[in-house]
Amino acid sequence: MILTQTLLDFFIETRKHTESICAPLEIEDYVVQPMADVSPPKWHLGHSTWFFEEFILKKYKKGYQVFDTDFSFVFNSYYESVGKRVVRSDRGNLSRPSVEKVYEYRSYVTAAVVSLFEEPIDPKLEAVLEIGIHHEKQHQELLLTDIKYILGNNPLLPPYANTYSEHPHESASQEWIEMDEGIYEIGHNSDQFCYDNELGRHKVYLHSYQISSTLVTNEEYLEFMNAGGYEHFEFWHAEGWHWVNTDLIKAPLYWYQVEGSWQYYSLEGLQKIDPKAPVTHLSYYEAFAFALWKGLRLPTEFEWEAAQGQFSWGKRWEWTESAYLPYPNYQKADGALGEYNGKFMVSQKVLRGASIATPNKHTRPTYRNFFPPSARWQYTGLRLAK
Amino acid sequence: MILTQTLLDFFIETRKHTESICAPLEIEDYVVQPMADVSPPKWHLGHSTWFFEEFILKKYKKGYQVFDTDFSFVFNSYYESVGKRVVRSDRGNLSRPSVEKVYEYRSYVTAAVVSLFEEPIDPKLEAVLEIGIHHEKQHQELLLTDIKYILGNNPLLPPYANTYSEHPHESASQEWIEMDEGIYEIGHNSDQFCYDNELGRHKVYLHSYQISSTLVTNEEYLEFMNAGGYEHFEFWHAEGWHWVNTDLIKAPLYWYQVEGSWQYYSLEGLQKIDPKAPVTHLSYYEAFAFALWKGLRLPTEFEWEAAQGQFSWGKRWEWTESAYLPYPNYQKADGALGEYNGKFMVSQKVLRGASIATPNKHTRPTYRNFFPPSARWQYTGLRLAK
Amino acid sequence: MILTQTLLDFFIETRKHTESICAPLEIEDYVVQPMADVSPPKWHLGHSTWFFEEFILKKYKKGYQVFDTDFSFVFNSYYESVGKRVVRSDRGNLSRPSVEKVYEYRSYVTAAVVSLFEEPIDPKLEAVLEIGIHHEKQHQELLLTDIKYILGNNPLLPPYANTYSEHPHESASQEWIEMDEGIYEIGHNSDQFCYDNELGRHKVYLHSYQISSTLVTNEEYLEFMNAGGYEHFEFWHAEGWHWVNTDLIKAPLYWYQVEGSWQYYSLEGLQKIDPKAPVTHLSYYEAFAFALWKGLRLPTEFEWEAAQGQFSWGKRWEWTESAYLPYPNYQKADGALGEYNGKFMVSQKVLRGASIATPNKHTRPTYRNFFPPSARWQYTGLRLAK
Amino acid sequence: MILTQTLLDFFIETRKHTESICAPLEIEDYVVQPMADVSPPKWHLGHSTWFFEEFILKKYKKGYQVFDTDFSFVFNSYYESVGKRVVRSDRGNLSRPSVEKVYEYRSYVTAAVVSLFEEPIDPKLEAVLEIGIHHEKQHQELLLTDIKYILGNNPLLPPYANTYSEHPHESASQEWIEMDEGIYEIGHNSDQFCYDNELGRHKVYLHSYQISSTLVTNEEYLEFMNAGGYEHFEFWHAEGWHWVNTDLIKAPLYWYQVEGSWQYYSLEGLQKIDPKAPVTHLSYYEAFAFALWKGLRLPTEFEWEAAQGQFSWGKRWEWTESAYLPYPNYQKADGALGEYNGKFMVSQKVLRGASIATPNKHTRPTYRNFFPPSARWQYTGLRLAK
Repeated sequence: MILTQTLLDFFIETRKHTESICAPLEIEDYVVQPMADVSPPKWHLGHSTWFFEEFILKKYKKGYQVFDTDFSFVFNSYYESVGKRVVRSDRGNLSRPSVEKVYEYRSYVTAAVVSLFEEPIDPKLEAVLEIGIHHEKQHQELLLTDIKYILGNNPLLPPYANTYSEHPHESASQEWIEMDEGIYEIGHNSDQFCYDNELGRHKVYLHSYQISSTLVTNEEYLEFMNAGGYEHFEFWHAEGWHWVNTDLIKAPLYWYQVEGSWQYYSLEGLQKIDPKAPVTHLSYYEAFAFALWKGLRLPTEFEWEAAQGQFSWGKRWEWTESAYLPYPNYQKADGALGEYNGKFMVSQKVLRGASIATPNKHTRPTYRNFFPPSARWQYTGLRLAK
Repeated sequence: MILTQTLLDFFIETRKHTESICAPLEIEDYVVQPMADVSPPKWHLGHSTWFFEEFILKKYKKGYQVFDTDFSFVFNSYYESVGKRVVRSDRGNLSRPSVEKVYEYRSYVTAAVVSLFEEPIDPKLEAVLEIGIHHEKQHQELLLTDIKYILGNNPLLPPYANTYSEHPHESASQEWIEMDEGIYEIGHNSDQFCYDNELGRHKVYLHSYQISSTLVTNEEYLEFMNAGGYEHFEFWHAEGWHWVNTDLIKAPLYWYQVEGSWQYYSLEGLQKIDPKAPVTHLSYYEAFAFALWKGLRLPTEFEWEAAQGQFSWGKRWEWTESAYLPYPNYQKADGALGEYNGKFMVSQKVLRGASIATPNKHTRPTYRNFFPPSARWQYTGLRLAK
Repeated sequence: MILTQTLLDFFIETRKHTESICAPLEIEDYVVQPMADVSPPKWHLGHSTWFFEEFILKKYKKGYQVFDTDFSFVFNSYYESVGKRVVRSDRGNLSRPSVEKVYEYRSYVTAAVVSLFEEPIDPKLEAVLEIGIHHEKQHQELLLTDIKYILGNNPLLPPYANTYSEHPHESASQEWIEMDEGIYEIGHNSDQFCYDNELGRHKVYLHSYQISSTLVTNEEYLEFMNAGGYEHFEFWHAEGWHWVNTDLIKAPLYWYQVEGSWQYYSLEGLQKIDPKAPVTHLSYYEAFAFALWKGLRLPTEFEWEAAQGQFSWGKRWEWTESAYLPYPNYQKADGALGEYNGKFMVSQKVLRGASIATPNKHTRPTYRNFFPPSARWQYTGLRLAK
Repeated sequence: MILTQTLLDFFIETRKHTESICAPLEIEDYVVQPMADVSPPKWHLGHSTWFFEEFILKKYKKGYQVFDTDFSFVFNSYYESVGKRVVRSDRGNLSRPSVEKVYEYRSYVTAAVVSLFEEPIDPKLEAVLEIGIHHEKQHQELLLTDIKYILGNNPLLPPYANTYSEHPHESASQEWIEMDEGIYEIGHNSDQFCYDNELGRHKVYLHSYQISSTLVTNEEYLEFMNAGGYEHFEFWHAEGWHWVNTDLIKAPLYWYQVEGSWQYYSLEGLQKIDPKAPVTHLSYYEAFAFALWKGLRLPTEFEWEAAQGQFSWGKRWEWTESAYLPYPNYQKADGALGEYNGKFMVSQKVLRGASIATPNKHTRPTYRNFFPPSARWQYTGLRLAK
């Protein structure tokens, strides 16, 4: 429950922030899709706009004229309830609508949403508006990681910005936090916004465990690589070992061997590996193999949530051992918004925390991010447990 | 811990039972592999034999002569530690060794193992022998389901046996069993044999729930089909919906529409659907979609284990909502045997119970079976919870 | 053998024309690659420029500074002799170099080539310059057809230009031209430019045949469609029938059914089919099936060349029955330029003539175009024989 | 036109010969299909039988009872006119009908065909009988090469027979046969049996050429291999180079490196390479690359046919430079038999001659065999021209 004025500010700030992420781009960068998981930046701009048009303006704005009737087909992502859509892997084949036209679309829809605030906002509308804003924030993170993938897989390795610190050090030194055996409460528990997958609040029993106060660093990960981590099947899931061998994986994503030493592509361009920074762009398979090699393990999402008040987090999304499953008494939302989370609850792993790309106000201790175990283009990392 | 004489009997009985499963086959049936998940029967016969040769005879039998040095390559399944092997999907391309030769191999290895009993069995050997026997029992179930797949996908639909009852009715009528909120102990807890994935015994907190005393029947599943269950995306995971549409799924495996009505291939041949028998050969996706359509859900493996004493089970492997993950304090075994379970703990769902194909003594309340969510060729079914 | 001044003019005119083809594009249109056969327009701009840099400036221009050393990797097409290159199907994943940068590259290289004319041009250089110009002309046709594919597969179907006549009628009425049995001379026979695949001039024996004076029209092709041409295997090669069924082909490329009647995407946008215009965007399979349905056949390339003086041609590339093979005494050129033609002489069909997209001076009666039998995005058509 | 008694003998001898090829097999060898191009031996036995049942007995034998109505589905190969069929790549998934049942089917059909001879044979029936016999002879060659593939790709490399001479030397020494420029007649020209693709007889003009009197030997091919033939793109078609790199081709099919020297799998088992025997199991790509490396070329099928009376042939099918295309005035047969040849006339190369596996009376100077350029499991070789 937030104040109307705050909500309007929140909306406007969010819309602006999306555009500021794109400010350093060339027009060409908005268009391409070098792998199916990545969407072209102009698609993110259009899709986050379409969400407001489809779920808010069409329903709550009297006499609203749709900006372009074809855009629903172009900018729908996966909502089966609202009609046909461009196949995901074809998004990068669309040169039109042009970037200029997409920005016009944004302005048109932003103005129409702002005009809704001229009258009192009813609670249902407010709820959907909040979802729309959080949805756009979620896309801000994807937008940045997709841009990184677009530039970081270009043979010219162009930088995104002159200064963008992706590799901050952890301030604390590593310690093992001791957690007692017992019953813990898990899940969202306030009147602030959350997604349906964080509910309902429920009890879990945890056996005693220890969790590291810090993330694993590049330096530690290099030890694993130098010890032949990628060549020994013993540390890997069968599925992970197949992935390593089929995709010829030898290092985290964006690592390049330059004249015998490892460098990585960062948003500032190609750089030497910073040994003290937390390792990132790992798949779950790699995080798991590293932990096994260390004789340790990944925490479950419950262990993470129970302990999270005792360590600093927010630089890397942290792979957990937990599969993405519904909580007891999980209820998916009605209609198209019900397609947001529940239908992905199979074959995915949970990540907890947040990353340097996560926008302001877009995480919390109960937030559950999820990706397939092979995903590497997010700022993923790991924290050990035992 | 079992008596030596009992162990010998158990070994001999198990070896014989494997062969009795193959008794109705033609030579040709031993050879083919109509999908990658299915192995040719002669491969099962050879592989379960190779296991004893590789892990027992080579180590514990003085002066043991390997039957044929090439067989290690041919009959290894997935043990990376013990060398190269035929690619899984190529097993059906091997006409040699002949079925006759494989039976010779079995006799040779069986006799050599029996001869070990002439001297006292040391506990380490006993432990591996027990694993070898249980390993072969596990393959007995696969052997039967693979035979069913081989015959049931042949356009001639030949029967396997004149009488083989796959579709027994449940004796009890459906009731909801009420389970209280609280802490439950989960995992193996006796000195009998179990796999490493059933350990260690640990506590889980369960919220109150209800679980059905009976399995879902064909009659109930037909209601879902007739209500358009396979045509409505709302009931499906995104991944499941993709599977339905790509593989053109319209019914459980082995169901054929014959002159307008549904029949299924059973080991006795093509038959009318028995409405009161428990539905089987479902994927997890279908089990989940059915439950969602009913407004109910699948139990977790913990809910199942906590309640299992209060209902009858053993006809169908039952899909649960749980992903296949290690228990707290899970320790994988050393060496090649450590590849048995742990390396599959990603992207799989847990099934509980047992099926009409499960051999004698090869299940228990804590047994955790696992398959990818799309697997249908086992005798899989479902039990509802709420 | 052409005059130096004429060659300079020819070069400048060709460079300008390439750019004029791109004049109507948005920046975004330069970047995408909706299928592997299509290259992004900016790639054509860069590649035709790289050809001059690689094969002329590096060798003949003293002190020449390469514009950007990475461009060789980005803009090489298939010349194995000159190093590694971007995989063809990844060309559409490259947002950089930007379109602006590619135009700078063009200007830089154009100026450097022009400066070569300040001194006498030696005959070897002249020969390569001529190849470079013809190479660029060849890319002009691909550039236009690739642009058509990029726009014509966009769900918004944007027009390329307000007036671009792709569907001119044939002026003459259909007649059968009678050709006598006998020996004919085939192949290039002048001191003008030709490709190596048009040499050497040689004799072929042709039996008497008749060839149509006109191309097959849309109206005639619609009869085939309405007669169920795409549903009857009898008219198709086995490979063609597989293609029809796998790719769900029901009409020529760019044909869309709009409210029950056929329209096609043209460079002017979506239009009604013009019944009297020659049909285009057919695969060889379709051309062959149409001819078989008519009880007729396609001409061989030799029949076409022998008769071409007696009919008007140049609107459609015309599929022939001939496979693309070397002429007697064919000699491929030395070095990288030898990769131009010979290495494609397997699994391709010959097309003769030219199309509305063929640039000025870029065809002749002996010109041999070639594509795999499934290619449809060129302005392909057919002429019947018997 | 052949005498009735001769035709009956020819039929009976052919049926017996097919079975004699299978005599050395184990039951298991009849069932598998290690690549899509290979058919299981029992499929060949059934299909060549089905051909007589479908095209002769159903039509010409009064009151004929089909042996098993399901066999049409199982044993049809590619005749679209006669109904649905098992997908080619699934033939190896069928354990039933059993080998015993297939032999019963053969006996049943053979007896029924023989009984037709009790009455005068009308000319139409005679024509189809002749096709059926030649069809079976064609399958005899495939049967043997498929058996070789089945055994030669088994890791145990079992021999097929104790003596089977696949590698006979050429008796003559190598000479260049000079052929004059001029008009030659090509195509079948007698009242003996031929396939439709050998008609009609027609004239071609050939420029003067030379053709080798002998086939290329293993010794010569090894020189190419030792000179790095498989590592230099210059000798290969683009498509061939892609094939070499994708399929990791380093030698002819069945060549294995054993302790540093090359051996090949022959029907007698693994053997040392015989340097003087003609090289075999080459793709067209390899034959072409070898010729180019030598500074020579392959003959066209017309050059081969014009010269064939002057050299000995029949040990290897010989790749030619010709694509498989219809002759002038080619007419395909009516009905299902019209699917025999014409529909394959795209994307295939012509081979001329015959091989050590070709049955008696199953070739002639005008015989046109054809395979895709990558096919290697036939006894293919090459003869050079210049």
